[in-house]
Amino acid sequence: MSEQRFNELRGEQVIYAIHRQDRTFLPTREHCPLDPTRPGGPETEIPVPAFEIAVFENRFPAFASPHGAAEVVVYTDDHDGSFATLAPARAEALMWVWRHRYIELGARADIEYIFIFENRGVEVGVTLHHPHGQIYGYPFLPPVPALELAADARLGGCAPCALLAAEIADASRLLYEDEAVIAFVPYAARWGYEVHVAMREHRPSLADCSAAELRSLATALQSIVRGFDALFERPFPYVMAVHQAPTAASAGGPAGSAGHLHVEFYPPLRTAEKLKYLAGSEQGAGTFIGDMIPEESAAALREAIARGG
Amino acid sequence: MSEQRFNELRGEQVIYAIHRQDRTFLPTREHCPLDPTRPGGPETEIPVPAFEIAVFENRFPAFASPHGAAEVVVYTDDHDGSFATLAPARAEALMWVWRHRYIELGARADIEYIFIFENRGVEVGVTLHHPHGQIYGYPFLPPVPALELAADARLGGCAPCALLAAEIADASRLLYEDEAVIAFVPYAARWGYEVHVAMREHRPSLADCSAAELRSLATALQSIVRGFDALFERPFPYVMAVHQAPTAASAGGPAGSAGHLHVEFYPPLRTAEKLKYLAGSEQGAGTFIGDMIPEESAAALREAIARGG
Repeated sequence: MSEQRFNELRGEQVIYAIHRQDRTFLPTREHCPLDPTRPGGPETEIPVPAFEIAVFENRFPAFASPHGAAEVVVYTDDHDGSFATLAPARAEALMWVWRHRYIELGARADIEYIFIFENRGVEVGVTLHHPHGQIYGYPFLPPVPALELAADARLGGCAPCALLAAEIADASRLLYEDEAVIAFVPYAARWGYEVHVAMREHRPSLADCSAAELRSLATALQSIVRGFDALFERPFPYVMAVHQAPTAASAGGPAGSAGHLHVEFYPPLRTAEKLKYLAGSEQGAGTFIGDMIPEESAAALREAIARGG
Repeated sequence: MSEQRFNELRGEQVIYAIHRQDRTFLPTREHCPLDPTRPGGPETEIPVPAFEIAVFENRFPAFASPHGAAEVVVYTDDHDGSFATLAPARAEALMWVWRHRYIELGARADIEYIFIFENRGVEVGVTLHHPHGQIYGYPFLPPVPALELAADARLGGCAPCALLAAEIADASRLLYEDEAVIAFVPYAARWGYEVHVAMREHRPSLADCSAAELRSLATALQSIVRGFDALFERPFPYVMAVHQAPTAASAGGPAGSAGHLHVEFYPPLRTAEKLKYLAGSEQGAGTFIGDMIPEESAAALREAIARGG
């Protein structure tokens, strides 16, 4: 059902999840599999008439147990909601759900890296509109967190700590901050409106955060996403990627210090109408070519975040 | 106009080409800037009434001279043609044009890597339909060729040579071959219909190929692209990426042996209608999740190549 092969030229694993070709694709709202199962209504993935947050194994998983995990996290039973419009207490509860899954999946010997993410919008291939995210437990360390660990080694310490200090000192790309978290367009953003939300203190993972820090993180993430929606006055597509410490003992693990919890947003829009495509340079050479200087994106986003409230 | 910044977390350069936001976007066919300048017609980028192949500097370049280069290669003055439908002699001439540009740009001290590519189809962000490709001369070694050199080091020799031997031995993913080139769906393809066309002998670059090898390469590339168009009986979008030896002396260069000329195709379609999106796993973790096993894609493509003729 699921197969893993090593791509020598790229130096990375590739996953083949064959059954996924038939997965549910943009169902009508009457047949949403992430709605609750209402009395007299169709049977969904969630066999209760109402819920706050639901987590279940993906029916069309990228990984076949016992090697790796693929879970779905439904943020609300309200089909028309979004991460941005969750009640603050619900967004905060979601941070605790993420933390719980990170710790529980991270304890499994077959999993080396826990990746919590959300794909939002048909522009990034979303097949279900109901507000939800996903959690992958990879049976290997994927390339992007490996590059982050390589940055730590290159800089001789925690790279996100060093980059955060530089962003604070520069200040021209800062978007949002409180005592626990800071959001900014990174100095060398790949996407026009790329945003990183980082813990101010060195916190390898959600498991290392205090309750106050988790609350701050939820508030910051919602502020950013409301700002995205306000930017072009339309639902703003993005990939939201939670980067934390690998859970494999060999790579540091939750008890180690490798990794620094931060959330990266990759929005494909470069204007209200135009998408950034990954074409020749990005795919064939690996080099992103952007249209906007990060300081300009940050100025536009600061204004949108103020409007988004 | 153009700025380069190092992205620490990804370990890569990012380019900002600010003026490109205003570049020509899907003009009507009467205003195609890649048509010849016909008597009485509008003035185009090409100030002659007819041509075979035209090369000129991109008006909206990713790189600002004197650091790096960005050129456009127009394959034909026929607006409605495509790489697949070029006369064989024209396709062969294009290989000589590529070779000429590789050698000439490769001699420049400010350029470390020459990347010849074609983006085809609005699905990969094409803004001009007139058949054309592009050439970037990067003032640094980009991540993908760096990964290929890392594969050479890991395998203790030329990685494409080793992979080619394995593909020939396995044979289940081969698509096309003659005495000089072999085309196949690679063992660990990232894209459903990814195809590699590799020189049978170790040829670091186009500069190392004989006239017969260049002719074989042109024929093979056209066969693959005609097969793509036949697969779903529609113009098939793709990124075509020519990978060769870096031209920086420090990395091997045209005179060295690092690198092995091969052409990679990345098609975004996974069915006649459905696109593969790069979302959470691909962007945030760097791991591709595919729907199709490469042997099955190869079987479908073999049949399509036979139909495409």
